[in-house]
Amino acid sequence: MEEPSPAGAVPDGDALHMARAIRLAALGRGTTSPNPVVGCVVVDAAGAHAGEGFHAYAGGPHAEVVALSEAGERARGGTAYVTLEPCDHTGRTGPCSQALLEAGVARVVVAVLDPNPEAAGGMSRLRAHGVRVDSGLMAEEAERGNAEWLTFVRLGRPHVTWKFAATLDGRSAAQDGTSQWITSPEARADVHRLRAESDAVVAGIGTVLADDPRLTARPDPRQSFHQSPHPATPRRAPLRVVVDSEARTPPGARVLSSEAPTLIAIADDAKTDLQAPLLRLPRAHPDGLDLRALLTELARRQIVSVFVEGGPALAGSFLREGLVDRVVAYLAPALLGSGAAALGPAGVRTITDTHRLVFEDVTPIGTDLRITARPASEEH
Amino acid sequence: MEEPSPAGAVPDGDALHMARAIRLAALGRGTTSPNPVVGCVVVDAAGAHAGEGFHAYAGGPHAEVVALSEAGERARGGTAYVTLEPCDHTGRTGPCSQALLEAGVARVVVAVLDPNPEAAGGMSRLRAHGVRVDSGLMAEEAERGNAEWLTFVRLGRPHVTWKFAATLDGRSAAQDGTSQWITSPEARADVHRLRAESDAVVAGIGTVLADDPRLTARPDPRQSFHQSPHPATPRRAPLRVVVDSEARTPPGARVLSSEAPTLIAIADDAKTDLQAPLLRLPRAHPDGLDLRALLTELARRQIVSVFVEGGPALAGSFLREGLVDRVVAYLAPALLGSGAAALGPAGVRTITDTHRLVFEDVTPIGTDLRITARPASEEH
Repeated sequence: MEEPSPAGAVPDGDALHMARAIRLAALGRGTTSPNPVVGCVVVDAAGAHAGEGFHAYAGGPHAEVVALSEAGERARGGTAYVTLEPCDHTGRTGPCSQALLEAGVARVVVAVLDPNPEAAGGMSRLRAHGVRVDSGLMAEEAERGNAEWLTFVRLGRPHVTWKFAATLDGRSAAQDGTSQWITSPEARADVHRLRAESDAVVAGIGTVLADDPRLTARPDPRQSFHQSPHPATPRRAPLRVVVDSEARTPPGARVLSSEAPTLIAIADDAKTDLQAPLLRLPRAHPDGLDLRALLTELARRQIVSVFVEGGPALAGSFLREGLVDRVVAYLAPALLGSGAAALGPAGVRTITDTHRLVFEDVTPIGTDLRITARPASEEH
Repeated sequence: MEEPSPAGAVPDGDALHMARAIRLAALGRGTTSPNPVVGCVVVDAAGAHAGEGFHAYAGGPHAEVVALSEAGERARGGTAYVTLEPCDHTGRTGPCSQALLEAGVARVVVAVLDPNPEAAGGMSRLRAHGVRVDSGLMAEEAERGNAEWLTFVRLGRPHVTWKFAATLDGRSAAQDGTSQWITSPEARADVHRLRAESDAVVAGIGTVLADDPRLTARPDPRQSFHQSPHPATPRRAPLRVVVDSEARTPPGARVLSSEAPTLIAIADDAKTDLQAPLLRLPRAHPDGLDLRALLTELARRQIVSVFVEGGPALAGSFLREGLVDRVVAYLAPALLGSGAAALGPAGVRTITDTHRLVFEDVTPIGTDLRITARPASEEH
């Protein structure tokens, strides 16, 4: 609901090209991890569209390289619009700053600066070689599209999305425990799409014991996610993580199936003979695990984005620790008046301690509403 | 979120004129009770706009009369678009069917038929005199604008809107009972506007004891409600109703102030010496009053619309009895995880008994979302 504000004095058309670059970047959502999503538009010296591209998968060509290649000689004297500062280091590909110099572009417009000290420096190198560089154009919108990766780089931990499905009065099950199905098939399909875009899906042991979920991403193949121009891109299945202090996951739980990798996070002193990949973590208040330690370990495994799916107790713990970067609520047009609340104790005793959010988006999904929000504090 | 579907084969322009008539009708919201809101647009024989009007207050001229008077001789051979079937009876004003005949209109387009047997018959009379009459155009949209009055006439009881304010997780107070302010000043102003549009505001004794509310409508004078072309229209203050089985309302409660009328609904066997207008009602499950009897009595007093404001227990009782016609939820961008739920027990034990709704509208109000819904069952 916020309008991106274009930076200072920029020529007409800049916003248009950058908006397109941001849309291009979004095509990489779900397949670039642990890399950021990046989009690039190149216009020729006369301002006409000459080429475009996006980063499609980790190890694949960078957006700038794709766009420059399409533009060819028309890039000379032209302008490149990039959603993220061009890299200046040689990783799996050469530095994009060098590619832009070799193509002869006269100007580079950047939305977001690269917070990664290893990759940053692209703008300085370009300027040093006489290229005009403007930055900050539509930065807010571009940041939003790269929220997962930016959180990963800035905070050294994965970006955490907490999703819940509830009635309009905030309940996720009726008094007798029944809950199938509060939300519509369209909303459930949307959840699979979001799971598929994540590197890991996290649930508490309560949810595993109550619902025996598979926790796999089974997106509708007709959805745009799979209409990528790189359908053959190998996509790793999201890692399934169970937060299970006492190692109570049953050996036959579906979450242990072979269809996707699983990690059972247990207390460092828990006794178990469970045959599954275990992650031992310190205990933490009140009867859970140290979630920061969990996220640190996941980051070490190159997990950039985490999708927390419940239940109420685990969600409350993530919130209490300030570890929720985005909330996605599916609200069904229904009222229960009793039954389990979608969110359990989250460390709030009095109204001034409320976890304040900012609504970012409201979209009807089937008969439900999907409401997206982020924490009001700007440390995220 | 639903599109009104124009009826069968109607000439171009009809929908445009009817849409304007519906907008005109809405200008009467809050001042026509116990009458419906009605809008009318008159076009001349060539289809050019000739006059328009709306019913502004009970006892004032009907929409058709205002529009015909503005159109004058240009109405002859023209078309009148009316949101509600023109009346055929002589009440405080003469029948509109007669006025349309005298003005010589050749065609009348009606959105909603009049369910009131006393007033209905306008269409038959017009047809009997050779006027072409089409009905049903944008009926759904026009119904929505007249929902209160239509419920009143069809069901013989006031239309009930239940309003609540809560966090995204459905809580209306923190664990320690504090709740000021969950929603934004803009949302609170919007509540005053809705109160002012209602004939009665209803609260439970729990709310009166906890918050000592005034329950008066104090709309922002800058809001459109008061930009009526009839600013001098006398507007009755909404009746304040407290549902108070045991007559526990304290003599000094603000709800008993002289600034608006008040009615304390108590059990027929309750002992009290409270100096206030009392309404004795049968008791009903579980420890409340017979809410149908309450509404019947309010209808007898020409109360067309009721605004139920809490608390959770009273709202649950209205829902359990199937007496909620509209839900207005103000959701704040905040999460609590504990504290009082916005809605108390509402007679649902298992998920299939859920009170199903249909979302009608979502509007950002300040930093909050206002979500409007109606029961999914179409008996309303």
